[in-house]
Amino acid sequence: MPAYRVIGVIGGMGPAATADFLARLVAGVTALHDTDHPRVLIDSNPHVPDRNAAVRGDGPSPGPALAAMAQALVAQGAQVLAMPCNAAHGWADAIDAGVPFVSMIDAALAEALGHRPRCIGVLAVGATLALDLYGRASPVPVIAGDLAVVQPAVNAIKAGDRSDAVRAALAGEAARLALSCDVIIAACTEVPLLLRQADVSVPLIDSTAALARATLAAAALPDMDG
Amino acid sequence: MPAYRVIGVIGGMGPAATADFLARLVAGVTALHDTDHPRVLIDSNPHVPDRNAAVRGDGPSPGPALAAMAQALVAQGAQVLAMPCNAAHGWADAIDAGVPFVSMIDAALAEALGHRPRCIGVLAVGATLALDLYGRASPVPVIAGDLAVVQPAVNAIKAGDRSDAVRAALAGEAARLALSCDVIIAACTEVPLLLRQADVSVPLIDSTAALARATLAAAALPDMDG
Repeated sequence: MPAYRVIGVIGGMGPAATADFLARLVAGVTALHDTDHPRVLIDSNPHVPDRNAAVRGDGPSPGPALAAMAQALVAQGAQVLAMPCNAAHGWADAIDAGVPFVSMIDAALAEALGHRPRCIGVLAVGATLALDLYGRASPVPVIAGDLAVVQPAVNAIKAGDRSDAVRAALAGEAARLALSCDVIIAACTEVPLLLRQADVSVPLIDSTAALARATLAAAALPDMDG
Repeated sequence: MPAYRVIGVIGGMGPAATADFLARLVAGVTALHDTDHPRVLIDSNPHVPDRNAAVRGDGPSPGPALAAMAQALVAQGAQVLAMPCNAAHGWADAIDAGVPFVSMIDAALAEALGHRPRCIGVLAVGATLALDLYGRASPVPVIAGDLAVVQPAVNAIKAGDRSDAVRAALAGEAARLALSCDVIIAACTEVPLLLRQADVSVPLIDSTAALARATLAAAALPDMDG
């Protein structure tokens, strides 16, 4: 029998982050055979209304689209939902499809807090910052990276630019945050596509990887042999 | 407006190959913004009845499961279907969901024939060989790699082993095929997860990459500005 519940992925924000998330779900399973893996249903939809425009009041809310995607995934069989986009969690309340929703914010924050930091730095953009998604959930202070550095880097990564110059910009901002913070969360799914732990002097939490681990844990069924 | 029709992916055979396929769909789009990408609906289902057992008469046909997945994807909005598993194409006739199905066999074979080979080598396993999926579609002779080498390598990759020893085994078999063939098709989706062009002396066709290119081409909408 399957070892996991069916996982539903509200994705496409952006598409590369969803591909990264799926790869991490696969790599996170100790499998001898294909059948050891969970079934994963994905809606990679890059046409969800823009989260950053919505938070600026310049566009429609993404909430209804996210709710519809969640309901369709559950109708197709999803039993646990995850959404590999930090900013979209500003509308997580709209996702009420009757099955557990694994929060990326909670998953990344839990891993960060495991390092017992006095302060957490976040590399994030748009709605994640505007809605203070990490700060309002954290028991310790959260300091955001400079948007003037992080936003152009994220835009570059979304456009396929994974050059050393973009990496260096993110690493520089991480180094600045590390002057006052004990741990840094890559709190935009594009950031860990380029910035790695080796680029940062303090622990770097990859929010995509943290969500993959938390999703597999939430989807795991009790071991019938155990 | 979107530049692509909605792509549906009949996946999970195996899960890593489906993640690889999604990454190649993303990388294959020239995009400045998320919205330039196609919407992709994926059912990564590792519980489809085993293709190799079915062809040996040791298990049920995967046809009904594949047909059901295809129909559910189309019901959810898929307008073009692809299936990143060579062996499962032995049951492609069961997939009749009223939208175009992009054949992985045809996509990889077309790229191989582009090299004007006198003979094509295939690194494949199970149903792909037993049903001669490439041989029966090819106008030039197709020679299969030794299953005694390829099958253990594929099993190892499915179990997460991407060691140099496994790569060397596949490279050795490719070198043997290259003695009589002008081009080799990595005709099992696990093979290109490890074997690269640099490991092979003749052109190596990655069936997953070929399917991604053919799927994007089939899903592309006419350029309204063009």
